[in-house]
Formats: sequence, structure tokens, C-alpha cells
Amino acid sequence: MKTTEILLLLLCLNVVCFSALPSAPATCPADLGSECSGSGSDEWEGEFFPGIPKIKYEGPSSKNHLAFKWYNSEEVILGKKMKDWLRFSVAFWHTFRGSGADPFGAPTKFWPWEDGTNSLAMAKRRMRANFEFLEKLGVEWWCFHDKDISPDGKTLEENNANLDEVVALAKELQGSKIRLLWGTAQLFSHPRYMHGAATSSEVGVYAYAAAQVKKAMEVTHYLGGENYVFWGGREGYQTLLNTDMERELNHLARFLEAAVAYKKKIGFNGTLLIEPKPQEPTKHQYDWDAATSANFLRKYGLTGEFKLNIECNHATLSGHSCHHELETARINGLLGNIDANTGDPQIGWDTDQFLTDIGEATLVMLSVVRNGGLAPGGFNFDAKLRRESIDVEDLFIAHISGMDTLARGLRNVAKLIEDGSLSELVHKRYESFDTEIGALIEAGKADFELLEKKALEWGEPEVASGKQELAEMIFQSAL
Amino acid sequence: MKTTEILLLLLCLNVVCFSALPSAPATCPADLGSECSGSGSDEWEGEFFPGIPKIKYEGPSSKNHLAFKWYNSEEVILGKKMKDWLRFSVAFWHTFRGSGADPFGAPTKFWPWEDGTNSLAMAKRRMRANFEFLEKLGVEWWCFHDKDISPDGKTLEENNANLDEVVALAKELQGSKIRLLWGTAQLFSHPRYMHGAATSSEVGVYAYAAAQVKKAMEVTHYLGGENYVFWGGREGYQTLLNTDMERELNHLARFLEAAVAYKKKIGFNGTLLIEPKPQEPTKHQYDWDAATSANFLRKYGLTGEFKLNIECNHATLSGHSCHHELETARINGLLGNIDANTGDPQIGWDTDQFLTDIGEATLVMLSVVRNGGLAPGGFNFDAKLRRESIDVEDLFIAHISGMDTLARGLRNVAKLIEDGSLSELVHKRYESFDTEIGALIEAGKADFELLEKKALEWGEPEVASGKQELAEMIFQSAL
Amino acid sequence: MKTTEILLLLLCLNVVCFSALPSAPATCPADLGSECSGSGSDEWEGEFFPGIPKIKYEGPSSKNHLAFKWYNSEEVILGKKMKDWLRFSVAFWHTFRGSGADPFGAPTKFWPWEDGTNSLAMAKRRMRANFEFLEKLGVEWWCFHDKDISPDGKTLEENNANLDEVVALAKELQGSKIRLLWGTAQLFSHPRYMHGAATSSEVGVYAYAAAQVKKAMEVTHYLGGENYVFWGGREGYQTLLNTDMERELNHLARFLEAAVAYKKKIGFNGTLLIEPKPQEPTKHQYDWDAATSANFLRKYGLTGEFKLNIECNHATLSGHSCHHELETARINGLLGNIDANTGDPQIGWDTDQFLTDIGEATLVMLSVVRNGGLAPGGFNFDAKLRRESIDVEDLFIAHISGMDTLARGLRNVAKLIEDGSLSELVHKRYESFDTEIGALIEAGKADFELLEKKALEWGEPEVASGKQELAEMIFQSAL
Amino acid sequence: MKTTEILLLLLCLNVVCFSALPSAPATCPADLGSECSGSGSDEWEGEFFPGIPKIKYEGPSSKNHLAFKWYNSEEVILGKKMKDWLRFSVAFWHTFRGSGADPFGAPTKFWPWEDGTNSLAMAKRRMRANFEFLEKLGVEWWCFHDKDISPDGKTLEENNANLDEVVALAKELQGSKIRLLWGTAQLFSHPRYMHGAATSSEVGVYAYAAAQVKKAMEVTHYLGGENYVFWGGREGYQTLLNTDMERELNHLARFLEAAVAYKKKIGFNGTLLIEPKPQEPTKHQYDWDAATSANFLRKYGLTGEFKLNIECNHATLSGHSCHHELETARINGLLGNIDANTGDPQIGWDTDQFLTDIGEATLVMLSVVRNGGLAPGGFNFDAKLRRESIDVEDLFIAHISGMDTLARGLRNVAKLIEDGSLSELVHKRYESFDTEIGALIEAGKADFELLEKKALEWGEPEVASGKQELAEMIFQSAL
Repeated sequence: MKTTEILLLLLCLNVVCFSALPSAPATCPADLGSECSGSGSDEWEGEFFPGIPKIKYEGPSSKNHLAFKWYNSEEVILGKKMKDWLRFSVAFWHTFRGSGADPFGAPTKFWPWEDGTNSLAMAKRRMRANFEFLEKLGVEWWCFHDKDISPDGKTLEENNANLDEVVALAKELQGSKIRLLWGTAQLFSHPRYMHGAATSSEVGVYAYAAAQVKKAMEVTHYLGGENYVFWGGREGYQTLLNTDMERELNHLARFLEAAVAYKKKIGFNGTLLIEPKPQEPTKHQYDWDAATSANFLRKYGLTGEFKLNIECNHATLSGHSCHHELETARINGLLGNIDANTGDPQIGWDTDQFLTDIGEATLVMLSVVRNGGLAPGGFNFDAKLRRESIDVEDLFIAHISGMDTLARGLRNVAKLIEDGSLSELVHKRYESFDTEIGALIEAGKADFELLEKKALEWGEPEVASGKQELAEMIFQSAL
Repeated sequence: MKTTEILLLLLCLNVVCFSALPSAPATCPADLGSECSGSGSDEWEGEFFPGIPKIKYEGPSSKNHLAFKWYNSEEVILGKKMKDWLRFSVAFWHTFRGSGADPFGAPTKFWPWEDGTNSLAMAKRRMRANFEFLEKLGVEWWCFHDKDISPDGKTLEENNANLDEVVALAKELQGSKIRLLWGTAQLFSHPRYMHGAATSSEVGVYAYAAAQVKKAMEVTHYLGGENYVFWGGREGYQTLLNTDMERELNHLARFLEAAVAYKKKIGFNGTLLIEPKPQEPTKHQYDWDAATSANFLRKYGLTGEFKLNIECNHATLSGHSCHHELETARINGLLGNIDANTGDPQIGWDTDQFLTDIGEATLVMLSVVRNGGLAPGGFNFDAKLRRESIDVEDLFIAHISGMDTLARGLRNVAKLIEDGSLSELVHKRYESFDTEIGALIEAGKADFELLEKKALEWGEPEVASGKQELAEMIFQSAL
Repeated sequence: MKTTEILLLLLCLNVVCFSALPSAPATCPADLGSECSGSGSDEWEGEFFPGIPKIKYEGPSSKNHLAFKWYNSEEVILGKKMKDWLRFSVAFWHTFRGSGADPFGAPTKFWPWEDGTNSLAMAKRRMRANFEFLEKLGVEWWCFHDKDISPDGKTLEENNANLDEVVALAKELQGSKIRLLWGTAQLFSHPRYMHGAATSSEVGVYAYAAAQVKKAMEVTHYLGGENYVFWGGREGYQTLLNTDMERELNHLARFLEAAVAYKKKIGFNGTLLIEPKPQEPTKHQYDWDAATSANFLRKYGLTGEFKLNIECNHATLSGHSCHHELETARINGLLGNIDANTGDPQIGWDTDQFLTDIGEATLVMLSVVRNGGLAPGGFNFDAKLRRESIDVEDLFIAHISGMDTLARGLRNVAKLIEDGSLSELVHKRYESFDTEIGALIEAGKADFELLEKKALEWGEPEVASGKQELAEMIFQSAL
Repeated sequence: MKTTEILLLLLCLNVVCFSALPSAPATCPADLGSECSGSGSDEWEGEFFPGIPKIKYEGPSSKNHLAFKWYNSEEVILGKKMKDWLRFSVAFWHTFRGSGADPFGAPTKFWPWEDGTNSLAMAKRRMRANFEFLEKLGVEWWCFHDKDISPDGKTLEENNANLDEVVALAKELQGSKIRLLWGTAQLFSHPRYMHGAATSSEVGVYAYAAAQVKKAMEVTHYLGGENYVFWGGREGYQTLLNTDMERELNHLARFLEAAVAYKKKIGFNGTLLIEPKPQEPTKHQYDWDAATSANFLRKYGLTGEFKLNIECNHATLSGHSCHHELETARINGLLGNIDANTGDPQIGWDTDQFLTDIGEATLVMLSVVRNGGLAPGGFNFDAKLRRESIDVEDLFIAHISGMDTLARGLRNVAKLIEDGSLSELVHKRYESFDTEIGALIEAGKADFELLEKKALEWGEPEVASGKQELAEMIFQSAL
């Protein structure tokens, strides 16, 4: 078999191969049509989720697994409706393309509406399921990658045409009630991106990635998306031995500059978001954490053009608490969106679990409230069912649980603020700086000679207890 | 679409789905034959690796990437041929079924001899490639999982028939020069095993797994395998909230007891090996590390029947050095085999890299030499090419590099032993126990009253320097 | 200066040197008496904690930092008084000898009752403070190391005499209301123990350690202690390069056998407890985790004589959840006591923080309730104030917070049990084993041939959803 | 006892207390003079290291532990003398004040020249030992913290006077052969710094820290120091619950700005260096890693004024390889100095071991060579003897081993460069960017429309193998 034959085979197989990725259940290629067992139609009789009612708020005492216990969308907390603080979004990839596959196992999820293909018809049917899901769950936002929602064709042109067709349907289904939180281009799954996209060592890949982002940005704009996300899937390295890190980072900057220029050109006003992650799939991702991403943006003069999309699981993988990453983003003026999930404290890879830890949720909401909310960003559920959760109702249970947990966090923050003792404790700790000399210091007017003079005058300084245990007690009491 | 239809589709798709697993490149199902683009024949004209010569030893000064610089198979080191100390084995799954897929990406490797199917014909052709690879590389052992080497059919009977056909060819190709180090059953990829195999919550899965192990043990025996391995892929839990750990561990013990009984029944004299791993794919694997596995074996009275297969990457994931795990296995009388690879010290998942660290290799060989070698076990290269390494020659380079590194480690151990100063340092540290009182203590005859009497008599004990820096200096000098 | 002079100086300085250890605030040596600024008397006018009332239960709505919100000692939960489930104990070392020193800093805590010495008088005064603390806090148990409560003398005989004097006072102060949960010998701080105690390379150290444990066991018995703990402070290695691990483990086993013999000889009926910890201060501690400790006990035939003291922070440092370690101990029949604390999920050393995480506390109590309680063990607060918490009231706040958190955990477990849906979910998962074939398997009567027959008969097994998200939702609802 | 008495006692005890810190062996306070057993004189008869010869280069075949096998100071490698590439420096704190104390144990090291005090006389005698050590070792640079080399007095004035006296001696001893690599102020051990120094919540502490840095900078300048280091010992937080991170970071920036101003005022031309560390002693240090520190410097406009001091052990604690941190510093134009040490890959705290890993040393030297050397920075041995290494000769063995390892690394880099194949491999990977379109991209002139046009024109891009295994083979061959 010759190289050309292999390449033809590759073209033919790609779509199949991709089908067992975590983000894509087993399917047939869009272009094989009748050879696959797909029904060939995007129609679906009746409901996609027949046994599932519209999810309602029933309060904390409810035992109904298909009801909210803490999330009451219209209820006003701290001056805003819960839904406006939380701006929940469903992630199309996990919820509709998550197959349950992992590095050691094949897909486990075979939803009733899937016909085993990745045909255009199936892509559209799946999009209909998405909108029914959103409606029943009472979530008004969604997010996607280009490759989640439409099948690859044989060429870039075909890819784009397929995408257009599905996006047109999505636009129609959005109607006036559902909105797009953000779109993005998937630049990590295809073999062409194995060395990265904007940081690939191959110039052709750089160009291809640019074309793909261009299109994804256009359709995000068309769908009224409020943000556009860059997650640098393979922008990083596997070993420094074969890598010119400086050159790669320069390429990444040039790429993002071009994205900014194109955004302006087409009149897209959404926020551009960078999503930090320390590693996986690469040994080192260039957007390691919030501070690393901020350094990159500052170095290349891009701070005004980007914000950060902080993911809790990425935070802990980088050695920080999620709260730390949110606060770091916030005080750098960069907190734009949250990918709501959690990891396992004993696991060293991205598990993307639904957050159910109340303390963690309360800390997350503390940052959000301090930030005055996240709009135009929101909470995107970048979280997936466990591989072993294979009932359709599990999709609902997981989202309800995640929404309730964050809603409970918001209620706890309201309690903390009402109580006031935690913020008073913090305020008091620093009150020695609320003085004349403190003001001089903070204004940059206290030089070492003045400070030495003061030190000699004051003698040994008194230092107060840090009261960490008291702070923890107060915090825990609000949960 | 009804459940039954879905199930049929599932049956049909399974083989496709599996095709994008790391352990299986994109293929067609065995039973679809002509609908796939496969050639339908296991023939292959000429060599599989046409540009690659038989790999020879050229010594440390060679610049030839396709030559050994340290591994000289027939050379005698410490009284044994290098090949007898090292007993290298190629892992069929990584080398011939590794596709380059990862949780974020599709396969990247498309070897020339692959026809895009997982047909029986293709399975056989691949087996021929394996034996040419072994011959050119100068490796005399190989290892496999049942699912690596033969395609699934629609039923257990069909699976077994397919396996038999491929195994018959393997037997023929082995001839008198190549031997099977070990076989094993793959009990983690298929959705039926999502809750484990011997520890699945479903009794039907337990039975299915038993049938699969029964068959894998039979073919291992048929091929003259010297060992049989149990790696508990999904024997563990994702959350304790839904798990009865005690019951699952009991089931695992019953399963292994049945395996021992069957081994004896069929007259298979190979060693049974358990392979510890702390986690991945599950949050917690029951065979966490060497000590945990030893505890399990002791608890259920299985210590006489099993040894351990230690993998370096699993060792570091469990928080230990590889040398620690080897020594723990050794002093518990359980060191049976080594899965030769390494991880990345900053990465929290199993990267299965080829070991190229000389210090690490020297420590590994230190344990092996202390153990008097590994036979009937050996060094199985449970290591894979990086996803981005897509040239056929990379398969050779990686194995040569791994073989040379361990060979260099063996040479270093010989230097250390010849020099003698490191073992003398250790011996001297404990010489205060080479005394009358030391002998009493070690014989269990020194009670607390005697010891207190001695302590009062001796006064404050003198304590000598631990000389760690000196030990490290001596060790480094041997590298 | 000659070696002998240095040694004399060493003797003189040891007691001083030790004074800046974390477990010992700045003091003078016991034998220098008047040269130190100590008051020379164990008297103390009035209360040690004058502003602190007896801590009472005020319920969840209380804002009083010096009141219990969840712990109501006499209230009956799940058939037992809270105090009998929880059996709280104060750790003398952290609470009364914790100085706030750390590897980068000097002591920060200077309690009013401390006179700057480690004289016998001061040791007694400190013991009085301990009993007032217990009384005000409403805790009925305490724990100690020999070196916490009495100063070193120049010889073993002097050490023992000092210990006797303080222990006599403690006995008196215990009266009928306060009891000793456990005692232990401190075998890691003194330079003589730098290579370990029972695993030291010096036989004289082994003997000294035996004498010290002998004495500590005697005074524990005298004080009516219900348990005796072995924490292998430096029983482990810093590098395998200079270590004979097998010989050291044998010595450890001989040592523990002698301890068992002596325990029986003196009629001490308390439980002997081993406390697993993976590392710190050594690179590797021999009692790495519960399973490793169980393996050691089984290997040397000691399982009947020892149980485990599980510490949550040690659990997470070894890569496990605390719940995992508790369950592992429980199903091995080894759960004896809990060192109640927590670590920081992003920190790689032992922070010994007071547990305030409600979810974690609920999981801990789940294991305790399954175990039928911990008696004769209990919950020892092996937790310390942060270095920066320097107010006397912080000692109370921290303990109240820790007690309330575990009490809240217990209440949550009661809710979970009452609700029943979580245990039902688990029970149902395994119900396919509650069958005839399941019973055969569990009885060890199902061989591979029978199982294969069943597998062929049954065809592809059905596998149910793992329902992890539902389990998490139910769990979270109980918090 | 009243508060004032306690405070007096505190003043008296501080110096004692500090004596058991890792950085200070057991001593008497400087101001207690005769009450301590110190000799009261800085004289020392004969040599400090009587059995130790001047260390010479004997080449790789030498078995002499007190000789260099790889470091040949005057030998020219890659166009420079080894000593000019390496600029080794001894760290006064570890080598002369390291006591062997750790969080679980008292000091273990009692050097012959120590008289058990921290008197001024002792401080001077110790300084003489330092210079004899440097001379015998053949190291021309040293580093110190103010608190290492001189005892605290009762006031800031007394501290400064003590420092001046010792520094005058050091200046004399430096002569023309020994130079100061850098000085620094120790701002983390004293209780006053428990909440940080520049980021303390107490304004008095901020002022005290400024006074201390002012003085330390002055004496560094006086001694001809070529750099001045800021390691933010406690600049960070223990919990975000009690912390105003934004305000603290602003204070830190104001502090560093004042340092820059003062440096210029006194005409000190040395480089200011920030030393990143992720955590320990605090839960989170503000100078987490190189990128975080760079972001801080950029945010506050300080990039022109500071470089970074990269420590390998800090690198790995932050989740990066040391090579990564060095490269990150280098490509941000910030690589100023290296704190040469290593950690343990399985340990989560700072072990500050001497580096003996050849591969690691080679990677470190690769960055240094790419940087054109480190001058005016160098390699400071921020590494300490293990607690159990208590022989005087261990101090020499450890440094010789560390020096030889880096020297061997340098020789390996020379081999790699001479061979050329590794750099060629990297160069070739990116050659598709050495084209017209590549140049446009790198010049920021390729917009998305142009790139899309190219992508359409080119079709599916070809992607070459990453050749990681080959790169690893080449690298290993040079070791």
C-alpha cells in the first residue's frame, strides 16, 4: 500500500476515527450516507426526553431528584435574580457528544436519539435535542465547539458548509429565549493539530487553524454569541528537547493579534476569552494558569483585548484553589467567565466533574459577587457525566445537582454578607494601613529612609493574631 | 428507535467504537469484510520494515540511531549474558495497536501495513509484522492481551474462534527463537466492563470475565507463555458513595482463586502476576501499589500463588520511586516481572514513556541483580511512542533507546559492585547489629527489660553520619 | 574545643535546642533551675483561661464563637449520645507545646502561663492548664507523648523520674471525669533518633527506644489509658542508597513483638495502635498507609495485636481520601482510632489543620457509624493552631470549630440513614449477586468452567448506570 | 505574670528560640555573654578543617572523595573557563547555620568551631570558617542573609551595629580573591514577620522590613556584592478567607519600588533578583513561579529593574521542570541567577538537596549556555546536608558532588553542541516558518483572510513526526 493510498484511507477514516473520542459517540461519517445505519433524517417523533418534566424549584426539603432544591431562577438574591448572577450554560460537547470513552475504554453512552452516524441529519437532530434539554432544564445559554455540532467534510470548504447548515438551525431554535454564551473552534483532536494549532511547527497548520477560527468566530457572531473562547488544546509542548518555546509563543501572540483584528473587522463585540490549563493533553500548556496567561497578555500588549475563562478543575491541576484563580483573574481585571466543574483532589488529570461541594461553591460565588457578576460571561457547565452514568435522566440529575450547588453557594454568600463578620475581620486586619503613614505607603511616597525612621521610632511592632480558625468557623457557619 | 435496535446498533458499532481507542488504530469490524476498504488478505509483499536493518551493537561511540550503543546481547556481565539479565519483551498493544489517540485527540499513526480494518486477515498480517519487528530488533519475547491480537466477533464463541485462528499463526511464527513472556485478557475497554470485571456489580460481567480469562490462560499455555498477568483495569471505584468495597474485594479474591484452580487444572506452570497501579482509569484501583497488593494476597491466602509485575510509571503515580516498589516487591518475595517504562515527574497520569534516565535505569537494575534476575519474568516494554511520533523508524528508535538505557544501567550496576564502596557503606551502617545483642534482637529474644538494662548500661548512644551525600557521589560516579 | 567538651555542651544544650521545636515553646532546661527566668513554681493564681466560660451548646443559630452550634454532648443520635460516638480528645503536644515554629520561623506563641522554662515546675503548671482547658471545653479525654509533658534530664533515669512526677499530678487531676485516650513515646525529635528508633542503624538507639516505650507504656497503664500509639516518626528512609530496608523492617517487627509481650506482662489491656503516614520527616515512612501497615502486620503475624490510628491529613498525603483510609482500615478489621484533622488539598506536607469541611466530616462519620463507633478509640484532635493564631481564645475557637464540624457530620449521617436512599442505591447495584449463582461465587464454589457455561448461556450482560451523580446529589442534600 | 513581663521574656528568649531554627544551630544569645558557655573569642587555633586538603581536580577515574572528577576550574569549555560559566557560590545559611533541625526534630549538627552561642565573637569565628571553607573548596563566591552572619540585639540599632562588625571582618577576609555573589535580608523567621514583611497586615512590620532591607542593601554594596535577592519568605497567604490579596500585592509593589529607588540613591549597581517559590512556609507565595513573577513585574512596571533567581527545587514544587523555569525566565529576559539544588520527585516540600542528577544538570547548563552565562549572577548552592549527615567532611563531599555534577552537565552540553544533531532536529522542525509566508506571520502581517486563502490553496497540511524518542536518544547519548 502506498502513501497516497494511506492518505485516501486516512481521509475516509478520519470521521470514523473521531467517532470514539470522548467528545463524539460512535457514528458513521457524514459522507457515507446509506452505507451507515443512520436514519438519514433529522426528524424525531415526540419528545427527546419523554419522561422528564420541566424542572421546577421545590425547595430544600424536596426529595424529588428532578427538581431544584436551591436554584430558584427568578428569586432575587443580593439585588439580582439568581439566573442573572448565575447565567448557566450547557456545554454541547460534554452533554451531547460525550461518549463515555476514555484512554482505557470504548464509548458507553448510546442515547436514544443517536442513529450511530455523524451525518448532517444526525447533527441537526442532536441540535434539536439540545434545545429541548435547555428548555426542560430552564437554562438559557449554551456553548459549543465547531466540531461538536457539525460533521467534518473532506475539505475545509465542506466543513464550513456543514457548519453553516447546522448553525442556521441553531439560530432558528434559539428563538428569543435561548442565547449563545460562547462559541469556539476545536483545534486539538484532528491529527493535523498534533503539534498545536497556532504553535504548531508547521506553517500550514497555523494557516488552517486561522481559517477555522475565522469561521467559528463568524458563526458565533451570527448566533449572537456574547463571548468567544480560546482554549489552547495542544498549544504547549511534550518535551523541551524538540521545542523552540520562544518562537512558538511569538506565533501564538501573532495569531491572537490577528483574531482581535478580525473580530473588529466583522463587528463582533463579544469578549475574547483565554482558558488557562496547566497540562493535558500536552506536558505543558502555554496558558498554564491565570497569572501565566496574564503575563503572556501583558508581554504582547493584549491585556485590553482578552479576559480569562477560569475552570475550577484546571485551577486545582495547576496547584491552586479555584478561589485563588478566580481572585487572581479578578484583581488583574481579567475575570470573564467560569467553566463550572470540579476535579478530584487525589487525581492528576482533568475529570470535569459536576461541582457538588458546598464550601467550594460558596468560595466561587464569593469571587463572582465581588466581581459584580460575570456578564457578559456566565457559568458554563464544562462538566461531564461519569463514564458509568448511562441513563438519560443522569444528564438532568447532573445538571440539576451542579446548578443547585452553585445556587446554594450564592445563598451562602448572601448569608456571609448579611452577617458581615467575615468581611469585618478582614477589614480590621489591615486597619493599620488606614492611617497617614499607610496612605503614604500606598501612594508610593514612603521611601526607605522615612520607613527606617518610623521603624526606629516605633520599636518592635505589635502583631495581631491572624484568626484563621475564627474565619473558618464563620465561613462554615454560613454553609 | 427502540432499545433492541439500539442494542443491535451497539453490537455493530462496538468494533468500530473500539477502533479509536489508544490500543487500536482505526479499523473496520471483522465481520463486515468487503464493506470495508481492507485488502482481505494477511499477505504482505516483501518486508514490513524495508529500510530497517537488523539492529546491531556498535558501542557507545556510534552515532547510528539504528544501532545499540550499550546493549550487547551475548556479552557476559556479572556472570550472565545481557540478554538473560534483561529478557526484553515487546508489548503488542503499544507497538502494534497504539494509534496515538488520547482523550483530546484522534489517532495519528497509520502504519503502511494497516488496511484500515480489524479483520482477521489484518490481525494475522499484523502478527507477521510483529515477528519481523522482534527479529530485526533482536528481542526474543513478546506479550499480548487477547483483544490486541484478534478481532471481536458478535459472541463469546466467535471471539474465541477468532483468537484461536490468530494464535495458531503466532505459534507457527514463534518457531524456536521467539517466546511468549506473558499473555493476559483485556477486561477494561468494552462497555460491559465499565464497573470492573471481577469486581463488577453485575454477576453476568463476572462470569463473562471468567470465561475470557479462562480462554486467555489457555492460549497463553498453548503458546508456551511463561507468565500470565492480571492488571485490574477497572477493578476499583470511581466513588465510594456507590461502592461496596468489601464485597468487591471478596469477589476479586474468589475470582483469583478460581484462576489458580484453573491454571492447575490445565497444567499451566507459568507464574501468575498482579500488576499494581494506583488509579486511572478509576479513581482508585484495588491493586494500588506493591504493599497494597501484598496485603490483599496475604489477606486471602494467595501469596504462594502470585507474584507482582512492577511498572515504573505506576510506581511513581502511587507516590513511590520505582526502586522502592521493586525493593518492596523483592523483600516480600514477590518480584516477578517489570513493565519497563517511565512517567513524567510533573504529570499525574500514566504516560508510559520509554525509560531514558540512566540513574533510574541503574536503580532498577540494582533491584534486578539483587533478585538474581527476573526469570521466568522479564522486562516487558509497556511503553508507547508519543502521539506525535509517527514514523515507522520511531518504533525502532524508541525500543533501541529503552534497551540501551537498561543495558547501560546493568553495566553501571556491575561498576558499582566491582567498586564495592557503596555496599560497604551500607554494610557498615548496620554493623552494630552484627553483635551478640544484635543477634538476640534479630532472633526475637531481646525483651524490653533486657533492652532497658542495656540502655541504662550504655548511656547516650553514639550515632554516626548517614553519609547520604557520599552515597549519592559514589552512585553518580558509576553512571 | 575538644570532642568531649562539645559533647558536654551538647548535653547541656539539648534541652535548649529542643525548646524551639514545633512541639515545644521556648524554655529553659529543667536542670538549670535558677539560671533561667522561670518562676520555679507550678502554682498559678486564678484561672488559666480567665475570660473563657464553660463552652455550652447554643444551636445552629448562635453567633457566639465560644459556643457549640452542632455538638450537644448528651443528645442521642442514632442510639448513642454524641459524646459516646465522638469521644473527643485534646492532644497535649499541639495544644500545650505547639510553639508556632516552622522550618522557616521561630515560635510565635507565648501563653501567659508559660515562664520560659521547661522546668518540672513549668511542666506541672502546664498540666494544670490542660485540665482546665478540658473542663471548660467539655472534653473528657486527652493524649500525650512522654516528651510533651515532662522535661528531659541528663540520663534516662532522670527522664523517667521527671515523667513520674508529672504523671502523678496528671493522675490526680484526671479524677473521675477525665480519662486518657492514649499515650505514646516521642521517638523522633532527639538527635539520637535521626536514623529512626526501632529501625535505627545503631543498636544502642534500638535499646534506648525500647526503654522509652517500656516506660511510656507503664505510665499510660498507670493513667488508665485505653490505647497506646506507635507513630513511626523516623521509621523509614531518606534514601534507599544507604538503607537495608529488609533488615530495618525485621527490626521493627521484633520491636513491636517485644511491645506486645511487655503489654501482656504488665497487664495493660489497652489497644495498640499503629499510625500510618506516607512521608515526613523521612522521604518514606514504613507505615505508608492503611494497606501498607496491614501488610506489615500480616507479614509478621501481628494483626491480632494491633489496630490503626487513621489521620485524615496523612490519608491525603498518601494519595487517598480520608474516607478511603477509614474504610480500608475498617474492612481489614483494623479501625481503632482517628486523629482528627485535615490537610490542604494543594499542600504536600502535614498541615494538621482543624477539620471544618462538612462533606469530609460526614464521610468520616459514615465510616465511624458503620464501625459501630470507635471505642475504646476516639477522635483525638491531632490538629494545631496556625502559626499566626496567637490569641489564647484561638485555642478554644479551633477546638469548638473542629468538634462542631464532626458533630454536624454525625447529624448528617443520621439524616442519610433516615432517608435511606443512598444505602438503597448501593444495595441495589449489587443485587445480581443476591442470587443462586452469586451465592456460589461468594462461597468460592463457582469455577471457571461453570462461569464460562453461564456466560455462554446468558450472552452479552446488561450493565446498569453507576448513578454517581445521583449518589452525590443525595449526599449533598444531607449536608 | 503580666503582658509586659511576657514581652520582656520574649525579648530575652527570641535569640534563644531562633537558635533551633534550621538556619541556626544551638547558641546562646549575644547579649548574655558570660552566662553562656561560649568561649567569648573569635579566635580559633589552627585550621577549621584540619583533615581536609585543598580540593583538586583529579579526573573521572579518581576514587578520592575529596577531589573533583569533572570540575576543572581553569579548563576552557565552549570558549570560557569552567569557573566563569559556573561562578559557584557557597550559601552561608545552609553551610554554616544549618543545624539539622526539622519540624519533627532538634538540631543534629555541632561543628567543632561552634561554642554553643550566637555571640558576636562566635559570629566572627564562623565567618573565618566560611572563608577557609571557600578557599579549600576553590569557590570564589559566597551569599548570605543578614541574620545568618550576625546576632540579633535588642533593637534595630543593635542589630545593625552587630551586622556592621561582622561585615567589616568579612570585607577583610574577602581580600582580592573572594567575592560576594549576593546578600539579602532575612524577613521570615522572626515572629514579627508571621504575616509577611512587605505584605504584612501591620504597617509597623512593613516599616521594619524596609529598614532591614535598607541596611542589608547597604552592606551588600559595601562588600562589593554583584546582586541583591528578594525571596518573599512569608509574602503570601495561609488562607484567602482572612486576606486582601489585592492590597497586599500593591504593598509589595510599593516596597520593591522603594528598594529600586534606594539602590539608585546609594549607587549600588548590582542586579535585583526575585526568587520564585510556589508555597512553603505559606500556603501560597506571591512569587509562585517565573511566569507569575514576570506578570507581577510587568503589572507594576518593574521589569527593567529586576531579574529572577531560579531555584530548581522551587521549580518542581510549582509543577514545572527546572529547565522549564530557566527557559521561561530566559525568554522573558529575566534569567539572573540560579539557586543550585534539587528536590525529591516524590516529596511535596523543599528538600534543598545537592543536585546529583546528570540529566537534570545537563538541561540546566543548556539554559545557561543559551543565556551566554549567568554573570553577574552565578550558581549559589542553596542546598543543605541531610539532617543525618553530621561529619565535617560531609560539607565538602556535598559541595564537591554538586560542583562536579554541574561541571559534568557543562561538559555534556559541549558534547551536544559539538554533535549538533539535537539543535538541527529542532531547527528543522520549524523550517516551514523560514519561508515567505512564515516571515509574514512572524512580522504580524498575516491576517485571517490571507491565512484562510492559503489554507484553502494548500489543502490538508502535512505534519511531520515530532521525533521525541530520537531527541531523547541523542540527549542521553551525550550524558
